[in-house]
Amino acid sequence: MAEDSAVTIPDEPKVGVLGGTGDQGKGLALRLAMAGIPVGIGSRDQSRAEDAATETGYGCIGRDNATIARWCDIAIVAVPWAGHEALVASLADPLAEKVVIDCVNPLGFDKRGAFPLPVPEGSAAEQAQALLPDSVVVGAFHNVSAVLLLDRDLTEVETDVLVLGDVRAATDAVQRLVSLVPGMRGVFGGRLRNSAQIEALTANLISINRRYKIHAGIKITDLPE
Amino acid sequence: MAEDSAVTIPDEPKVGVLGGTGDQGKGLALRLAMAGIPVGIGSRDQSRAEDAATETGYGCIGRDNATIARWCDIAIVAVPWAGHEALVASLADPLAEKVVIDCVNPLGFDKRGAFPLPVPEGSAAEQAQALLPDSVVVGAFHNVSAVLLLDRDLTEVETDVLVLGDVRAATDAVQRLVSLVPGMRGVFGGRLRNSAQIEALTANLISINRRYKIHAGIKITDLPE
Repeated sequence: MAEDSAVTIPDEPKVGVLGGTGDQGKGLALRLAMAGIPVGIGSRDQSRAEDAATETGYGCIGRDNATIARWCDIAIVAVPWAGHEALVASLADPLAEKVVIDCVNPLGFDKRGAFPLPVPEGSAAEQAQALLPDSVVVGAFHNVSAVLLLDRDLTEVETDVLVLGDVRAATDAVQRLVSLVPGMRGVFGGRLRNSAQIEALTANLISINRRYKIHAGIKITDLPE
Repeated sequence: MAEDSAVTIPDEPKVGVLGGTGDQGKGLALRLAMAGIPVGIGSRDQSRAEDAATETGYGCIGRDNATIARWCDIAIVAVPWAGHEALVASLADPLAEKVVIDCVNPLGFDKRGAFPLPVPEGSAAEQAQALLPDSVVVGAFHNVSAVLLLDRDLTEVETDVLVLGDVRAATDAVQRLVSLVPGMRGVFGGRLRNSAQIEALTANLISINRRYKIHAGIKITDLPE
């Protein structure tokens, strides 16, 4: 979608988490729903989506992916990398003229840990943009620990969320959305062409987690509060 | 060099900053010298190295690159990316059996800002390791603002420095070195195969600097102090 495209984003958007029954999707759904945002979880399998929504609570609903894609104002693609291309391609129509947040990290794993996988389009976010010519894709939530997101004893998830994209209205809206979650700050992190390294950075955070036995996140220094 | 290679690193290593007359090199030389570490600046042109050393002060010396490479215990490669391959290849002999820190970011620039350049070996650090089979290459100092490093009014440069490498004794030594600089914390950031995204992350920090008019760095959350 062209850089000057006019996306319409309501002040209080409904957020759909597509492929949202994994830990990252459920964690994001939980934090957004806890913050009072209307949230829907989508899955290929409606009954799994309904179970995840019940588990999440806070008014969260669960349906099949296409229904949630149509229902929401802003979508979050939270499917595992292996299913990314097929899921995104199948939802081009219901996601048209919407902001689509991609949080997927193309990573491989072996006994030495995690490492980035090559992506022909450059990054998961750029692959999504190529498959969704009538949507505005924004990268965000790549580096947030699912363990922390899902820990209901934790009232704040202290982290910066880098928000990447080429359309200012869309990145601004996603920064606002992020900042509704207690502890999180949405920080503009550059254009989509600079997404690959933010996706891949998750491999480093996994290395850090192993070494220090923590759930690492990142903060940007020198930003005004 | 094999992962189990025994590198000998003195408790109080002399640090050589190779290709060190640019802002990043001079900034790192200044901060290390201010911390009481013996520092030498290397350049192709000995008189430029001597000028940079005089400007730095704190006992810093300046010589040609090969002399500094031979003199130091730990080297920092701080040359611009365009000169990286040639400089590193030319110093394989004097750098043998030493720890070589690579802080070079392979970035391109156009009117939209900075973006990562493809590197056949994967990253600058992996290119250096391929060219220095008898040295141990460690990635570090990629994301530290030269402006802050060179600001003598700033007593502390508050940032985490991700340290990447495959040889534990070497990454440990570099973490200790980093942590001698007031404000800096050396954090293990993963293996060399996960260096590319840390080098490329500098493009995002440049985008952040443009947007927010700051000198951004990063901190890792959830680490014990």
